[in-house]
Amino acid sequence: MTNLLDTLTDPLLDNSFKGFPRTLAPMRRSEVAKAGWNVLAGDLPLPLAVLKREAIEHNVAWMQTQVRGWGIDLAPHGKTTMSPQLFRRQLDAGAWGMTVATVTQLAVAVAAGARRGLIANQVVSDQDLAGIQQMLHEHGDLHVVFLVDSLAQLDLIEAWSARHPDSLPFEVMIEIGVDNGRTGVRTHEQAIALAKRVRAGKAAKLVGIETYEGQGATGESGPDTDYTNILMDRVDAVARHCVANGLFETDEVLVSAGGSAIYDLVALRLKPTLGVPVRGLLRSGCYLTHDNGTYQRFQKPLDARLGCAPGESLRPAMEIWATVQSCNESNLAIVAMGKRDISFDLSMPTPLARAARGATVPTGVPASWEITALNDQHGYLRWSDADAALAPVVGERIAFGISHPCTTFDKWHWMPVVENDYRVSDAVLMHF
Amino acid sequence: MTNLLDTLTDPLLDNSFKGFPRTLAPMRRSEVAKAGWNVLAGDLPLPLAVLKREAIEHNVAWMQTQVRGWGIDLAPHGKTTMSPQLFRRQLDAGAWGMTVATVTQLAVAVAAGARRGLIANQVVSDQDLAGIQQMLHEHGDLHVVFLVDSLAQLDLIEAWSARHPDSLPFEVMIEIGVDNGRTGVRTHEQAIALAKRVRAGKAAKLVGIETYEGQGATGESGPDTDYTNILMDRVDAVARHCVANGLFETDEVLVSAGGSAIYDLVALRLKPTLGVPVRGLLRSGCYLTHDNGTYQRFQKPLDARLGCAPGESLRPAMEIWATVQSCNESNLAIVAMGKRDISFDLSMPTPLARAARGATVPTGVPASWEITALNDQHGYLRWSDADAALAPVVGERIAFGISHPCTTFDKWHWMPVVENDYRVSDAVLMHF
Repeated sequence: MTNLLDTLTDPLLDNSFKGFPRTLAPMRRSEVAKAGWNVLAGDLPLPLAVLKREAIEHNVAWMQTQVRGWGIDLAPHGKTTMSPQLFRRQLDAGAWGMTVATVTQLAVAVAAGARRGLIANQVVSDQDLAGIQQMLHEHGDLHVVFLVDSLAQLDLIEAWSARHPDSLPFEVMIEIGVDNGRTGVRTHEQAIALAKRVRAGKAAKLVGIETYEGQGATGESGPDTDYTNILMDRVDAVARHCVANGLFETDEVLVSAGGSAIYDLVALRLKPTLGVPVRGLLRSGCYLTHDNGTYQRFQKPLDARLGCAPGESLRPAMEIWATVQSCNESNLAIVAMGKRDISFDLSMPTPLARAARGATVPTGVPASWEITALNDQHGYLRWSDADAALAPVVGERIAFGISHPCTTFDKWHWMPVVENDYRVSDAVLMHF
Repeated sequence: MTNLLDTLTDPLLDNSFKGFPRTLAPMRRSEVAKAGWNVLAGDLPLPLAVLKREAIEHNVAWMQTQVRGWGIDLAPHGKTTMSPQLFRRQLDAGAWGMTVATVTQLAVAVAAGARRGLIANQVVSDQDLAGIQQMLHEHGDLHVVFLVDSLAQLDLIEAWSARHPDSLPFEVMIEIGVDNGRTGVRTHEQAIALAKRVRAGKAAKLVGIETYEGQGATGESGPDTDYTNILMDRVDAVARHCVANGLFETDEVLVSAGGSAIYDLVALRLKPTLGVPVRGLLRSGCYLTHDNGTYQRFQKPLDARLGCAPGESLRPAMEIWATVQSCNESNLAIVAMGKRDISFDLSMPTPLARAARGATVPTGVPASWEITALNDQHGYLRWSDADAALAPVVGERIAFGISHPCTTFDKWHWMPVVENDYRVSDAVLMHF
């Protein structure tokens, strides 16, 4: 089937995309590196989200080295970036496959070349089940696994399969959830009852056990370690029971967990000794760009646990540059950047650097600078009286760090990749 | 210049777009109406944002009738939807032109056929000034006006124009701001000093006065009326001074205000008697789809002021349908809809209706149902014990109303337009 995704490897960019030079002709992604643009030279309109190549490459390599050391594999969560070009970098670096949250996201991952897809979510609807089957039929080498957490869901899957007798069995993992949590079975007994029902039916094969520890993370190593171990003990117990009772139908049992907050703690528990081949799959997604907010806070105790020096582990790889448009109150500058441009769901953006109009080298910003609010298209930058002499001026450019990559990527169709001197050396597209 | 926007009138949709049927071949927008889809029949995957045709058409017509009655014009804010097809509906209904927040948005409005653009923002950067000039050169019949609020900004504009002696003068409006506000001059004296400097230079012509009252809106008619009148008195005074002193360089003075909260109050003040031709421009954007949250709350006192019966004025025109994926705790259902699908910045989504698997007619939901939290891809639906017997089940579909159209539109590339029975009769695309 022809598909727009076929063009994603070298799509056309034009000035209807936020951040594309306003007066230039449309250009293929592959031509961007040759254009000679520099963000600080004013070659691209602001606001603009940029990815720092060196930091991205460092993060991709660092995480891949980590999982190798832990004896497990990486199935990075693609929902974070939804960028086929970034998916490729992750796959080329050795990722087992891509994790996604929806069947639409799976289609983008498959178009980007992924041949193993883990849908870290319950699939329940006919449209989604049919979509998976279609992809399996189109790509004989594709493996797709998704989560089940209730008999009610399994009923829907079995009913669909009964209506589609030529369909392939779905590969599923049982999700282990927690009380006061989100999805996932709450008890060992529920897990076993579900595993038995999967085994008894023809619609699905049980290939692994999954959980998500991220919602219990606090950023304090003691409680986070305890939380992880209690949760992973439950995963182990279910997996052991399923092995002992022949409930898995796979040559290799998948055991998966891992958000981006305490991934080191679950990683140590993803290869339990089950007496059968086990593949541990870590699903972190935000590691790719890291951030200057939520995940930076979680990384500090994580670095301490791993014995990493500052900068040795993950580095913030995304900045949003914006222009000061109005300074009509003391201690207030309005920047032309808002909820349409940068994440605001977990914390406000962090001012990182400034560049006066015409300057091509950024300098630091006073520690008192902070974004106190965002409207759709505006940001409110404030500072303490002590920094009055360093106040921003109209036309000045300011760089902001993000908190939560997932909700920044989804506000852009493309991002230039920049060198440390802000020369544009590549570009990626997002496909939300 | 060739431009992807040229294709926006009849673009190709495919299953890499959220909500497009998973197993169908790519299809032109114009073919969607003939496809015979019905959302409740399960023809499109969920989550899905749908626009209700009758409500959209009602809202477009109602607002146009209102502004005509007020003797002013509508320059609807395009940032809300960024949909060329919806822009066309607004322009065809009689809108004077489109309001936008950025030059990128202006390019989309111009591509959609707008020939008058009001950038309700300060333009300060070379890229943006050059972008406006390019559009003016490409479209001889295009008028673009933007906001100025400081001498520092005017300096940048004049410096740019001095470097580009063949450029056309920019048409500008002075923005009147408020203390503890956002952009805009804070005093009468600042406004006059700025107007004089515009008049003295060649780079720009003063064509009007602008303000934005939305940030002062409370939803209480008394304070909102007082606030509006004090603000609009300042607009009047500046406009009168500029007329008396020959500071305008236009045949028709533009006076503009208007968000979507208390637009009726400013509307009455947009045609002051200045002794010269005046065009009042209301910039509301959210009226097009209205909502079931923030703007619904503001509309109640507004209806009271206008003497409108319920349903006579604006009607909520957008719903997000999502599937229940997991119900593993009492009083908690997880729906497959999250921060990637629906606005959460002003209020959480509102459950509106439900449709059991297979049902094609929705029914009402218990009043106790509420979304208490959203993750990136999940929503938490809770209810009171009294409604336990009516609890949602896995596979059931639920419709949610939005709060804040702007931050819902930007999460979708397309939306089907549906009849009241959820037959799909059209589709629109968004271009953020």
